[in-house]
Amino acid sequence: MHRWNTAVEQNMVVRFVNDVLRGFGQVFFQNSPISGALFLFGLFVGGWAMGGYALLAVVVSTLSAYWLGISRSAVSAGLFGYNAALVGVALTFYLDDNNMLPVYVVFGGFASCIVAAAIGNLLGQWGMPALTGPFVVTIWIFALGIYGFTQVEPSANSQAPALPVLATGGRASLSFQDVYTGIFKGISEVYFQNSIWIGVIFLLGILASSHIDFFMALAGAIIGLGAGWALGVDENSLTMGLMGYNGVLTMIALGGLFYLLDVNSLVLAALAVIASVIVSIALTTVVSPYGGHIYTAPFVLTTYGFIAAGASLKRLQLVPPAKATTPEGNINLYRDYHWWERFSEPRS
Amino acid sequence: MHRWNTAVEQNMVVRFVNDVLRGFGQVFFQNSPISGALFLFGLFVGGWAMGGYALLAVVVSTLSAYWLGISRSAVSAGLFGYNAALVGVALTFYLDDNNMLPVYVVFGGFASCIVAAAIGNLLGQWGMPALTGPFVVTIWIFALGIYGFTQVEPSANSQAPALPVLATGGRASLSFQDVYTGIFKGISEVYFQNSIWIGVIFLLGILASSHIDFFMALAGAIIGLGAGWALGVDENSLTMGLMGYNGVLTMIALGGLFYLLDVNSLVLAALAVIASVIVSIALTTVVSPYGGHIYTAPFVLTTYGFIAAGASLKRLQLVPPAKATTPEGNINLYRDYHWWERFSEPRS
Amino acid sequence: MHRWNTAVEQNMVVRFVNDVLRGFGQVFFQNSPISGALFLFGLFVGGWAMGGYALLAVVVSTLSAYWLGISRSAVSAGLFGYNAALVGVALTFYLDDNNMLPVYVVFGGFASCIVAAAIGNLLGQWGMPALTGPFVVTIWIFALGIYGFTQVEPSANSQAPALPVLATGGRASLSFQDVYTGIFKGISEVYFQNSIWIGVIFLLGILASSHIDFFMALAGAIIGLGAGWALGVDENSLTMGLMGYNGVLTMIALGGLFYLLDVNSLVLAALAVIASVIVSIALTTVVSPYGGHIYTAPFVLTTYGFIAAGASLKRLQLVPPAKATTPEGNINLYRDYHWWERFSEPRS
Repeated sequence: MHRWNTAVEQNMVVRFVNDVLRGFGQVFFQNSPISGALFLFGLFVGGWAMGGYALLAVVVSTLSAYWLGISRSAVSAGLFGYNAALVGVALTFYLDDNNMLPVYVVFGGFASCIVAAAIGNLLGQWGMPALTGPFVVTIWIFALGIYGFTQVEPSANSQAPALPVLATGGRASLSFQDVYTGIFKGISEVYFQNSIWIGVIFLLGILASSHIDFFMALAGAIIGLGAGWALGVDENSLTMGLMGYNGVLTMIALGGLFYLLDVNSLVLAALAVIASVIVSIALTTVVSPYGGHIYTAPFVLTTYGFIAAGASLKRLQLVPPAKATTPEGNINLYRDYHWWERFSEPRS
Repeated sequence: MHRWNTAVEQNMVVRFVNDVLRGFGQVFFQNSPISGALFLFGLFVGGWAMGGYALLAVVVSTLSAYWLGISRSAVSAGLFGYNAALVGVALTFYLDDNNMLPVYVVFGGFASCIVAAAIGNLLGQWGMPALTGPFVVTIWIFALGIYGFTQVEPSANSQAPALPVLATGGRASLSFQDVYTGIFKGISEVYFQNSIWIGVIFLLGILASSHIDFFMALAGAIIGLGAGWALGVDENSLTMGLMGYNGVLTMIALGGLFYLLDVNSLVLAALAVIASVIVSIALTTVVSPYGGHIYTAPFVLTTYGFIAAGASLKRLQLVPPAKATTPEGNINLYRDYHWWERFSEPRS
Repeated sequence: MHRWNTAVEQNMVVRFVNDVLRGFGQVFFQNSPISGALFLFGLFVGGWAMGGYALLAVVVSTLSAYWLGISRSAVSAGLFGYNAALVGVALTFYLDDNNMLPVYVVFGGFASCIVAAAIGNLLGQWGMPALTGPFVVTIWIFALGIYGFTQVEPSANSQAPALPVLATGGRASLSFQDVYTGIFKGISEVYFQNSIWIGVIFLLGILASSHIDFFMALAGAIIGLGAGWALGVDENSLTMGLMGYNGVLTMIALGGLFYLLDVNSLVLAALAVIASVIVSIALTTVVSPYGGHIYTAPFVLTTYGFIAAGASLKRLQLVPPAKATTPEGNINLYRDYHWWERFSEPRS
């Protein structure tokens, strides 16, 4: 990595490739071009349009950041790419691939750059990270265009507006195959992919950057699936991983990244994953009458809440976003932190 | 009270009982275990499930706060109990008492603790109190679970999703009995109770802690009822106190608690109560298509607004949340404040 | 203007007239009593009720600000009038002119004063201007009263609640007359007026205060219309200026007022106008099921976003709201700012 980083410093093209790849990596919080390349590869496995439009959006967002004079260190950490990557993927997923789509993806990439700067500055007041909030805001606005623009058309994945209906019946009966399908698709759905194999590729991409996050991703998908099953979510949502993808991101964010990893933050992260499942259903209900989708909003809102609470939770150690790298890196940074001391005497 | 406070310092069990009771007290802004005990008694008059689940939620929230290392002074003032108390009550009111309800109440109590810390920290940036905002956020998420979880079922009190309908007809014709029913139920509805007698018990609970707040609570219920009648709210909502309970809390919050009591803050509080009636209708309309409820959101949003404005309102004296106790206590604190001086020369 | 300003200092009546007129002026960001008088004249051309209720609301809001001790400099710049002006106009537009309307306008004027102080203080934390956010919040709450108050009745302009429907068909075919109608009505719709001639009067009002803003207003209306046409908005919305009025305000706000005017901020403002068109459709969709309207929310949210991003956009020069006057005034203030230097070396 040392030679790569030197090349990034010296060569504009390498720097640009680096910034784009790390943008793809940051969707799973991995500030690594290798992880990013694997995630992008996974998207191309999902289809040429999927990979291509995601790449287009990240390129536009990164170039917008250069133009607007956004801090080089932030752009080179991929922080002005990951929201655009998701915007590109989600536009491809929810909209018809017509003449307007490329224009929409380009403008969506630009908009995600502005929204990322805006939300980053607003939340920076509390030392909070933006997470994929800028993606959610951007795609939420753009995808609703189908209700007013004749040139923007829905794909088969778009839900028609409808009043919500009560969930009835018993718990889903899941086979062993259903369970592992739900877990791996829970990981692939972070990038809106419905595939076990793409889930495996994404897991490898995480593993390339952090061993702990590999286990956190799996744990988030499993806990989300389990909580969804226990509360009585329908079988289709469970096996498609729709109760897992927010858990994956929540577990990575809270289990070692923005809180130092210890037994307390591990329990807190697991509880947050359960909360994200309830938030998923609540948001799905709210957006139903106007034909909206929830994207990664359950992860974003749940994790905002658990991080905003942090300043009061003296049993745990918040890691400021500017310092957070990986669970392993954070542990190295806070070598003198011993959670068991906190039990006897919390910090004042 | 001196002996009680000494016992709280020395005995873990007394401290725990104290923290729980003050949690019940803070729903009406009364930091008093006696008030809290009377409010809890009122809930048990409303039913064993009502009192029991409320108690369960407050116990869980208080224990969560201990675990997470939240500041002892805040927990012992009941600030990590009142949102949970309302979550317990509202879950019992809107959901069916099935097998999942106790689990949901326990998790709701925990969640309300996190949300209370989060919203407290976010609003602390502006020196604003959280009010029952954490309750509204938590219950709003949890109650919508009926639209996705088969194991979470609605009670008869839950409203089915529907497009809003225009209000038509004349003003309600209220008898004297309708009027006093509406006033006392307006007080009981703060805790989701539909009963004159529970309203009386709650009033006594307030009186045990602050004479001024006793009158403020009554004034809020009366003004809310009157404004609702004048604007043409339907008879059923008026006599059930649904136009009053937000006014009760708004009047207590603004009439002496977070603004020092004088003729200006009294007028401002009364105007805010009228505003809370309009906010009630607006929010009811917005949540109607997705089957949501408004809880105490009209009070919360109206009072947030009137407090956020405070830094610019130089005719009035804001009381910072950390200093605010009761109207009487605040007046003692600001002995040198004379509102009539403000007329000649507002502070710069 | 010097004699006027002296009279404002010395004479309470002149001061009051000044504060009211500047309130009308600030709807288009013009801190000028002459602009304000022309805008008010335009409203009276739109009808006696339109002008009269707008005037009533601004008078109430200004008097409320005096009572509450709000800073004299802010009130005398019209900052506690413009939201009330729009509240008065929008209540007249969306509600039936019955017995309750004057009461509602008076209370709406008062409420807009509180909300303006509240939002101003909240956004002041980030150095952001309130824009017409206080108007949007106030009118949004008040207009929904028709769904709960029998004494508040809708006008023919009010939309009934409905689930949103997909836009289908081709692009609108616009004649030359449609185009210029859409542009001038885009300017008149800022004040909810559907008239070419009122648009011309408003343009003259802007010209009386700032030549650059005259062109920005036109550019915003044109770009909004063009973007709306390209994306496939229906003909009626285009010719009524509904895709233009948010663009007019966005272009004025970002093209020289809150960003120093240069080639970068001009491009950014134009892109923001396009964004405001997409935001318009998204918000229209969201409010449709509960019968809401979008008012100037697309302008407000888009411009909040582009200004919040500003602290990170080192290629551009943000102008703090307290210093911002007109594009011309700002350029005089930042004489040493040269955007081309930023290309070689952005500020760190």
